[in-house]
This record gives sequence, C-alpha cells and structure tokens, in this order.
Amino acid sequence: MPKTTYIELLSPQVTPKSLPAVLTVAGSDSSGGAGIEADIKTINAHGVYGLTCIAALTAQNTSGVEAVEQTPIEHLRKILKKNFDDFVEGYKGEHPLKVVKTGMLTEAAATVLSENVDYLNKNDVKIVMDPVMVSTSGVTLTDNKTVQLCFDKIFPSTFLCTPNYVEALQLYGAKEGKEPEVKSLADLEKLIVALQQVLKCQNLLVKGGHIPWTKDGKLAEQKNGDDLVIADVLYESKEDRITVFKSPYISSENTHGTGCTLASSIASNVAKGFTLQQAVPLSINYIHTGMLSLASKLGHGHGPVDHTNIANNSVQTVIKGSDSLKSDLKEKHGGALSFFKNHELIKDNWKRYTEHRFVELVATNKLPFDKFLFYLKQDVYYLVNYAQIHGLAASVAPSYEQIHAQAEVIDNIMKEIERHKAKLLKKYNIDFDKADLDSELQPAKPCIAYCDYLLKVGKTQDFLGIKVAVAPCLHGYAEAGIYGSKIRAQHDGSLGVLSSIDESEVYGSWLDDYTSDWYTEANEIGIKVLDDTIAAVDISEQRLDELTKIFNDVTLLEIAFWDEITETI
Amino acid sequence: MPKTTYIELLSPQVTPKSLPAVLTVAGSDSSGGAGIEADIKTINAHGVYGLTCIAALTAQNTSGVEAVEQTPIEHLRKILKKNFDDFVEGYKGEHPLKVVKTGMLTEAAATVLSENVDYLNKNDVKIVMDPVMVSTSGVTLTDNKTVQLCFDKIFPSTFLCTPNYVEALQLYGAKEGKEPEVKSLADLEKLIVALQQVLKCQNLLVKGGHIPWTKDGKLAEQKNGDDLVIADVLYESKEDRITVFKSPYISSENTHGTGCTLASSIASNVAKGFTLQQAVPLSINYIHTGMLSLASKLGHGHGPVDHTNIANNSVQTVIKGSDSLKSDLKEKHGGALSFFKNHELIKDNWKRYTEHRFVELVATNKLPFDKFLFYLKQDVYYLVNYAQIHGLAASVAPSYEQIHAQAEVIDNIMKEIERHKAKLLKKYNIDFDKADLDSELQPAKPCIAYCDYLLKVGKTQDFLGIKVAVAPCLHGYAEAGIYGSKIRAQHDGSLGVLSSIDESEVYGSWLDDYTSDWYTEANEIGIKVLDDTIAAVDISEQRLDELTKIFNDVTLLEIAFWDEITETI
Repeated sequence: MPKTTYIELLSPQVTPKSLPAVLTVAGSDSSGGAGIEADIKTINAHGVYGLTCIAALTAQNTSGVEAVEQTPIEHLRKILKKNFDDFVEGYKGEHPLKVVKTGMLTEAAATVLSENVDYLNKNDVKIVMDPVMVSTSGVTLTDNKTVQLCFDKIFPSTFLCTPNYVEALQLYGAKEGKEPEVKSLADLEKLIVALQQVLKCQNLLVKGGHIPWTKDGKLAEQKNGDDLVIADVLYESKEDRITVFKSPYISSENTHGTGCTLASSIASNVAKGFTLQQAVPLSINYIHTGMLSLASKLGHGHGPVDHTNIANNSVQTVIKGSDSLKSDLKEKHGGALSFFKNHELIKDNWKRYTEHRFVELVATNKLPFDKFLFYLKQDVYYLVNYAQIHGLAASVAPSYEQIHAQAEVIDNIMKEIERHKAKLLKKYNIDFDKADLDSELQPAKPCIAYCDYLLKVGKTQDFLGIKVAVAPCLHGYAEAGIYGSKIRAQHDGSLGVLSSIDESEVYGSWLDDYTSDWYTEANEIGIKVLDDTIAAVDISEQRLDELTKIFNDVTLLEIAFWDEITETI
Repeated sequence: MPKTTYIELLSPQVTPKSLPAVLTVAGSDSSGGAGIEADIKTINAHGVYGLTCIAALTAQNTSGVEAVEQTPIEHLRKILKKNFDDFVEGYKGEHPLKVVKTGMLTEAAATVLSENVDYLNKNDVKIVMDPVMVSTSGVTLTDNKTVQLCFDKIFPSTFLCTPNYVEALQLYGAKEGKEPEVKSLADLEKLIVALQQVLKCQNLLVKGGHIPWTKDGKLAEQKNGDDLVIADVLYESKEDRITVFKSPYISSENTHGTGCTLASSIASNVAKGFTLQQAVPLSINYIHTGMLSLASKLGHGHGPVDHTNIANNSVQTVIKGSDSLKSDLKEKHGGALSFFKNHELIKDNWKRYTEHRFVELVATNKLPFDKFLFYLKQDVYYLVNYAQIHGLAASVAPSYEQIHAQAEVIDNIMKEIERHKAKLLKKYNIDFDKADLDSELQPAKPCIAYCDYLLKVGKTQDFLGIKVAVAPCLHGYAEAGIYGSKIRAQHDGSLGVLSSIDESEVYGSWLDDYTSDWYTEANEIGIKVLDDTIAAVDISEQRLDELTKIFNDVTLLEIAFWDEITETI
C-alpha cells in the first residue's frame, strides 16, 4: 500500500446571504461568450442565482455560428413549469425569482414565453427582454413569426426592453414599415419615445455600445478618435423621462456577447432591488470593465468580454461628478460637515445624538455607575474597530500627508482607549486585552452592528466614504462634550445616583476629554480633512446622496449605542 | 418631448489579466444548481473562462428530473470542433484551453468525447472526469454503453476522475462484478488504489461529501453528531501517494449539485496551475463555503449551493496547522526571521540583497550622485506604498497593541520619507508631493512591480502574511546598513565619483539612518512581532511554504530595485 497523508481542513467562516434569482430564456453559445453562458456568468458575478431555459443549442465560436438545434416546445414548457414550481410557488414570504431575462428566442420559446407573461406579471416577476435579432457578426437570428409574438404579447408585458441601436431601428421599421433616419442624439431621443409607444414595454433602453457619437451629439463617421462617446439611452414611460448615459467610446476587440451581458447585468441589478437609474450605469460599468480587463484576446474572431469581474454595487463610483456641486457645498452649506448635519434627513437625528440623554445623565451624575462601566467597555471594543478603519483609510489615502494623518488618528484613538482603561483599571481594578474583547467586553448588538457597518464601509468605500463614516463619531463627541459640559457647569455637584466622589470625577473627566484642547484640535482637523477630501474629487449628486446616507446611518448607530445604555433607566 | 438628463460615466480602471479556459461537457440543469449551469458559475467564480458542450437538456428542479432531451451526436461534434478551433488551434503561444471537465454524459457525448481524447492529450488539455452515474436524488443517469465507452477509452485518458463514494463502489462493482465492502477509511484507502488500477486514470479522487465517518475512521451509522468528519480521498498514481482530506461534516440542506461543483472547481484550479495537492483542498473549501453561505434555502428539495462566492486562492488558509511546526521554528531555527533568511530557497538571495553592490557603491562614494537621487525618488514612491500596507496591517491586526504598533510604523516611515525629502530638498532644491509621485518621481518597473506586489499581499493576506511581506525591507535595510557602514569605516574618505563633500555627507547620512538607534530598535521590534504573530496561530507546512515564497519574492524585488540603479554602472 502507498503512504497515506492525512490533512485536516478548516471550516470556512461565512456570513450567510440571501440570493435573489434571475431566469434566463435564451440560446446556448457553446463558446461561452454570449447567450445562456454569458447570462449565467454575469448573473453569478452579481451575487444573484441563475436559472435557465435553453431555447436552442448553437455550435458557434467567436468567428460565427455554424449550426442551431432548437429545443422542442413541450420541453421548454416543462422546464419553465419546473422552475416556476421551485422558485415562484410554495414560498411563505417573497419567492426568490425576481426577473425573467430573455435573449435569442426561437418561435417555440417566444410561444411558451407569451403563454407565461400574465403569470409572471401576476407574480411580480419582471421581464427584461433583450430582443436579439442581429448578432455582432451580422446574422439575423430571429424569424418573422417570433417577431410577431413579441409585438403582440411579450413587449407589452416587459418591464424593460433592451434593443441595441440597430435592433431599435429594425423594430421601429418592422412595425412602421420604414426605418427612421437617425443622424444625431436628438434624433435618437425622438426615436426612443416613438419606439416605446410602438412596443408598449414599460421601459426601453437603446444600447449604444457599437455606435460612437461625436462630442456634439452627431453620429460619428469613423470609429476612431479620442473624442468619441457612446450613448446608452433609457426611456422610462411612467416617469416620461429620458436619461442619456454617455461614456468614452472603447475601441476593443472583446465585444462578443456584450449585448447579452449588458442585459443580464441589468436584469441582475434589478433583481437585487436597484432602480433602472442605478442598474443601467452599474451594468455599463460591468460591461466596460469586462471589455478592458483581458490581457489577451480569447478566440480568433470578436473575443468575449471578461465576465469574472465582481459587479460593482456603488452607482456613485461610476458616475462623473460636477464642479458646481463642490462649490455649492463650500459656499452655500459652509463645508461638508455642516452640509451633512443640517441635511433634512439628518438634522433631527444629529440633535438626538449630540444631545443624547446619556450625556445629560453623565453630566448630572444620574447615570448608574455600572451602566457607565458597561458603556466604557463597549466603547473600547468599538474604538479598536474605529482604529482599524483608519488603517484602511491610510491604505487608500490620496496623499502621504493624509496617510500620516491616519496614523496620528490611530495613535489618538489608542490613547483614548488607554484613558478608558485607566479609568476602569485604576479605580475599579478592571483590565482587559484585545484577547478578552469578545468574552470580557461582551459587545452588545448595537456595538456589533456599528462595528460591522464601519468594517464594511472600510472595505468597500474609497477614502472619502471612510472619512464620512468616521465623521459622526469624531465630531458628534466634540459637540456632545460641549453639550454635557454646559449642563455639568450648572450642576450642583451632588453625587446623584453615584456612591463616591471618585465616580463623579470619572464622569467629569470623561466630559473633559471631549472638550479638551487636543480633542478640539482633532475635531477641527477632521472638519478640514473632510472638506479637503471632497475638494479633491469630482462629486456627483448620486455620490453625495450616498455619503449623506452613510453619515445618517452612522448617526443612527451612535444613537442606538447610547440608547442601549439608557433605555432601561 | 419628455425631459432628458445627460449623465457622464467614468471609464473603469482595470488591471488586465489572462484567463485560462475550461470546457465543460455535461447536461444542463435548468434549475441552475447542477450540471452545465453549476459548472459555468463555478468556473467563472474561479477567474477562469468557461466553454460548454451541452450533452442534454434536462427539465428538472431541486425535487427531481422530469424530462431529458439529448443533443444529437453530429451537433456535439460540431460544438467541440468549433471550440477546439477557437481555443486550442491557431495560437502562437500557449492556447487558453487547459482542461476539459465532463459531467453527465449521454452515449453520444461519451462517443464524441472518446473520439477526442487523443487530440486532447496531444494538446496538453487535461481531462477531469466527474463520472455522474447517480444524482443526489438517487436516479441513475447513465446507461451501460456509456459506461463501457468510459472504461475502454475515456477513464484511461483522464488526468483526474472524481466519483463520489457511491459511484466509486459502483464503478468497482461494474468492472469486478461485485461491489466491495467498505467499513472504515482504511478499507476506502485500499479501494481507491484498486479502483485506480481498474479505471487506469492518472489520478483518482473519491468525493466523500455525503458520507460521514467517526473520528476513529469507521463508517458512521447516523448522519448526526458533532464528531463526524468527511473524507475526500485522493490517490495520485505517478507518485503512488494517498492523501485523505478530512473536514468537519456539514449537515446542510444545500447539497444539490455539490458533486458537479466540486469537480468543476478542481478543474478550474488545475487550469489555473494548481497541483492536485493544492486544488483539492481549495475546492473543498469552495464547496463548503457554498453550502454554508445561503441565508435561506432555494427550491423545495435539496437546495443548490451558493456559487457566487469568490474562490479562495490560498491553500494555506484552508488547512489546519500544527503546534510542532511552531515550536520547531522557535527552537530549531531561532525564530521566524532567522528561518526565512537561512532557508535554502532564500539564503543566497538574502546575501545578494543585503550585500548588494548598490550599498558598496554608496559606502565607497562610487555611485554617481544622479543615480542616488533617482534611487531616493523611487524609494519615496515605494515608502508611501509601504506605509499604506501597514494601514492594511492595522486593519487586520489581532491585538490593539499591534494596531497601535502599525500606526507607529507608519509614523516612522513618514519620518523616513521626510528625511529623504530633506536630503533632496535642502541640498538640491527638489521637492514633491504625493500628487507628483506619478509624474515627477516616475517610478521604474521594478519599483512598480514591488509596490503592486505589496498591495496585493495587503489586500489578500492576513496579518501574518503582511508582516512577512514587509520583513525583507525592514530587516534587510538594517543588515545592509551594517554591511555598508563597515565598508565606509575602512574607506579612505575620497570623493570617488562625487563632486562635493555635501554629496559624500548625503551618502554617509543615508548609511547612518539604517544603523541608527531608532532603526535598530525598529528592526528588533519587527523581529519580535513576527515571532509573536506566528506564535499566536496554528501554522501548517503549506502555510509556511507560502510565507517562505512571499519572503523570497520580496527579497528578489528588493534586489531588482537596486539592480535597476546599478546595472548600467
């Protein structure tokens, strides 16, 4: 017998998550770049569960389609039934199937789909229809009966229809007898509104990936030059709103399957709960990333895109910002911190936080001392995480002065921890190390929620996002310190619920920490860094909305942190 | 006309990468959890390009298979031809197709595959064969003619065959007339060797996911209890070596498609260049993560696993370590730093680095001063990245003392940058900010390569991995400083190629920096932190190998950094 080695494997540590599901009805592209294969790859890369209904098997590669085997209609019916039985029917809460995405449809597939559109609409399953009529290589993939089924039954039931530019012209031509003339973006905007009225789909996106425009919105005559842009044009009929997403034209050989991929990316983002205003730019970013991220082309024709990139979930990071918003922040709002704390969404929460009852109880010696000790332990646990997020900030800081500044912040936080420990250790003989954090400190739920939130921001946001997430703690404690000190100055000095002068001194010194010179200075530096960081980037409205949400989330987490202490008093 | 909003999108910033490819020949599972769908999801999640050859379309869900439509043999031939034409033929260098993975095979698929095994072997395309004969739900999926084709032609040509436990018994029984009796792991080890001789595949993995064993290696009678383990047993015939990968038994409802997924994960890892000793534990980790990462089950039968998790590339993080290795490091090798720099792989490189000609040229005033200025600028660029990796270290530090220590290190690095800048600024009126780093400092290729490597380590490794990656710089400069200072002490004081005493003083002060008290202290603290960090974890041989590789990689990057300066002198 050969020698045997035993290797023990560790259990993976995972945080379970829920997966929404997208079902794709399309043809299979054996070369993996388009069709079902591109859809499944894309859906999975978006953190969404993918189901299939394969309408046809093609034998193809990046150079062309050789043969097509269509799936019998009865088999398609069985597949859809099986999938609906398992992913729509029989759930107590929401069922996982959020979107049915269609690609190349055979007559059989279009027939079966049209039989099911009412069922899907009734069950809140959105239809995202990519009307694949012409492949990148120019072959017409769909026959006339299928087109008729689409017009009669499917288009009017779809949430979103995503023809590319050529398909949009053809679809309009198929119905109106004559293809429209489009020479400018303005013409295209007119066409999209007219086409929506023809198709009767709820929303319409004309994908413009292959069609470059000049900067002034004319159809470009040549597909080269630095100034070319592409335009993906969205019309939302309920809102009666056109949005033109412009991006730099990418001259890439990796274009096989871009249409399928963009549509399935949008379907996935819609399944995740994004609006079309969010889903479309995120999906354009996904497809452009995939066009640029291959070091060498695969296949000998138009190469496939790279589907292995993780889909971006932050719409703000894919949209260009504007200078005017930046100067408004400074001129109209008196800086970023002032903007956030006076924001309609945040104003009341900020007051609830910085004038929290916890601070009043401390200032007037009315907080039971064991509650305060519990708070201090929680705060030590929190501060360790707060220091770590500054480590992440250092790793993405845009200047070395700011890298250095993060190190100084960590240093200050560590001193704050030492002061907390000194209060506990010297007076009450309580000591602990990081190793004890989980057992001895036993963080309560609000503390864990806050730390988890910070960690997530630290790992997913840029320097600005991190700075906004740490701002409510830094600046809120400065304001709370002033608020509490004022109350304490008017306090009669009585011990309240405390049992010794020592305890009262601990309360006084805690308030003093946050009104001290060094804390006031740290607070002012923080305000300036926030302003400087925003001044250094082009900020978009969407990004500012996201930052506002982060600031508000953290403010609410601060409130919950103190509520935990005071709610039983 | 409705109102139009124009939104400008940013171009994604990407680092292009190469994708190896895996072709999967299997049936489609419309419910997305097994078959082609599971394969494609898994392959993509491993950063590998997936191609397909769909042998059959099933109408199924998690509760069972309802109907199967087989793909005609001629169509399968066309699909394979198209894929080989595009992913094997016509490449100047290596072709992208590394692995063909098979799942459920129809007779037609087995026939076409057997026609192509010689072609695949000739073209270095490995075959990973998952002999799907029985699904999780107990249905036999393959007929006898297909089994015969496998035995005659396919098994003997496969790189790896991956039956599950039940299939292993059946395959043995099919050939030998009688299923073997397995009551213990020892019996299974005997069976795997015998089965390999029957199948004649190069390597054989018996997947044990469904079969729990007791701690002492007996077949467990019940599928519950904390002490149960599962065993995936690998036999490599060339090495005549059995490896048993043991992991805690996971009681999960999410088991639909686990077999396909494990096999396609291994196929992907093999395509990426991992050995089976690495690929198998990584793939077990991928499948276990997928079984645990769903917050709620999908479907009403055995639910699918979650394929959306990014595959782990660090085999060391999935293997349990041992105490003995840790004490060896301390007792036998005199600590971690000493172990690494005296390692067979590193020893000579360490000497080439710490006694680099650059240091000699500085010590003897023989380095042209413009070369030194170029080095200093490069080093400033590098140090900024070096500081940022310490930010990442802080964010994953296991104790708050060590979080604090990282902040102090960043502070020290910043002071080092300031000293570099002072040398340049005061004497030569050269100043720059981070904003100028890319233009003014113009990092050379070795500098960029080094920074990229550090950043990758910082983002993918734990605290220990980061500490090992920063060690060669910290400790190597201390040794180089001593080496250079000794040479300079014997130097006659002549200006050499320099043009002023000022320049000579810059060289002297550069050497003094790395022999100064504060640097010596930092060096000693670093040695201790490395030892403490290793002492705090269970380290495996595989992990130590990986750390050794990191230490060596960085040592070579240090050499290249100085070679860039000296190679034209």
